[in-house]
Amino acid sequence: MPAKPVPDIVVARLPLYLRALAAMRKSGKTFASSKEMAQWLGMSPAQIRKDLSYFGEFGKQGMGYAVDDLQARLRQILHLDREWPIVIIGAGRIGSAVAAYPGFADHGFRVCALFDNDPAKIGTCIAGLRVHDVRTLPEFVRAHGVRLAMLAVPAEAAQAVAELAVSAGISAILNYAPLNLALPDHVRVENIDPALHLQHMTYYLD
Amino acid sequence: MPAKPVPDIVVARLPLYLRALAAMRKSGKTFASSKEMAQWLGMSPAQIRKDLSYFGEFGKQGMGYAVDDLQARLRQILHLDREWPIVIIGAGRIGSAVAAYPGFADHGFRVCALFDNDPAKIGTCIAGLRVHDVRTLPEFVRAHGVRLAMLAVPAEAAQAVAELAVSAGISAILNYAPLNLALPDHVRVENIDPALHLQHMTYYLD
Repeated sequence: MPAKPVPDIVVARLPLYLRALAAMRKSGKTFASSKEMAQWLGMSPAQIRKDLSYFGEFGKQGMGYAVDDLQARLRQILHLDREWPIVIIGAGRIGSAVAAYPGFADHGFRVCALFDNDPAKIGTCIAGLRVHDVRTLPEFVRAHGVRLAMLAVPAEAAQAVAELAVSAGISAILNYAPLNLALPDHVRVENIDPALHLQHMTYYLD
Repeated sequence: MPAKPVPDIVVARLPLYLRALAAMRKSGKTFASSKEMAQWLGMSPAQIRKDLSYFGEFGKQGMGYAVDDLQARLRQILHLDREWPIVIIGAGRIGSAVAAYPGFADHGFRVCALFDNDPAKIGTCIAGLRVHDVRTLPEFVRAHGVRLAMLAVPAEAAQAVAELAVSAGISAILNYAPLNLALPDHVRVENIDPALHLQHMTYYLD
């Protein structure tokens, strides 16, 4: 455990480091310097060293980081040394596209079901996953000990569905609906909204 | 123009403030305090005041911010006081889902075409948009002065397609492919990868 609280912005970068390490490992490297990682990620080596220093000593002077060790340690820090079941709520375009994303398993996640309120979708399969009635969500979440949900329902339905999920035990939501969810403090929420990213980038265009 | 360079993390929050202001305006408010905005966004009022102070004086003591004025000013700062044409490269699941997202127009963006290399998709319409041959991308980008692209192609194709887009004049890419693009420094890239968000959240679960 880190001695001092780790800023959330540092935590947000750890998955990027994991991604860089996976790419390096794939290309046959067993050691990676902060410089190489920085180059791969388009950031500064000092930033990487500073971020990792929150979690103790990793690199050997002149050797860089042992790729396997640092990967294992980061996975442990991020609690990815286990498999996390996830539910996707909303089986529309976004929910279906996300369900078909092949990368989750590599990252420690297993999408185990989709939920929707549309009778035409309930009982069908999308990307090999069964679409369940959203009214059975609490039961499913409890039975399978699910704590993570991806929310891909229309904005006007999102708050109520999120509350239903949280009441059943969901404690982290990846929200694709374009609104800010108001949920208890213990619930982590991250938002994915392409418009926000685009608006961020246009600042730099003129 | 701000007197000192604005940290990117501050720029990234400005679209959130716009979103909060839009919600407040919709609910009939003409003035919004940093406290109200903070509550809506789940952040601290001091953070909002500090972020906005980079761009001059906005609020009136005791009155809060005039919603219309602050909206207009933020749109100007983010260069959203015009319409930005966008192309979507990749007409698969993600590209199609993004094309159908109804929120872009409200935020100053107009998706004008999709591109793919699949002959079965070229010439069809998705979400009312024509799918063009990706080989015609450079011509289209130049003819329409497009500077923004959303990239939703498989990881193995992403780098080459991104280079093609950049060579034609694209200078900001919202990348859905799960890899880091290596592009010239003047090109802005933001990545959308649900796995990264999930890995960030599991840090806080135990």
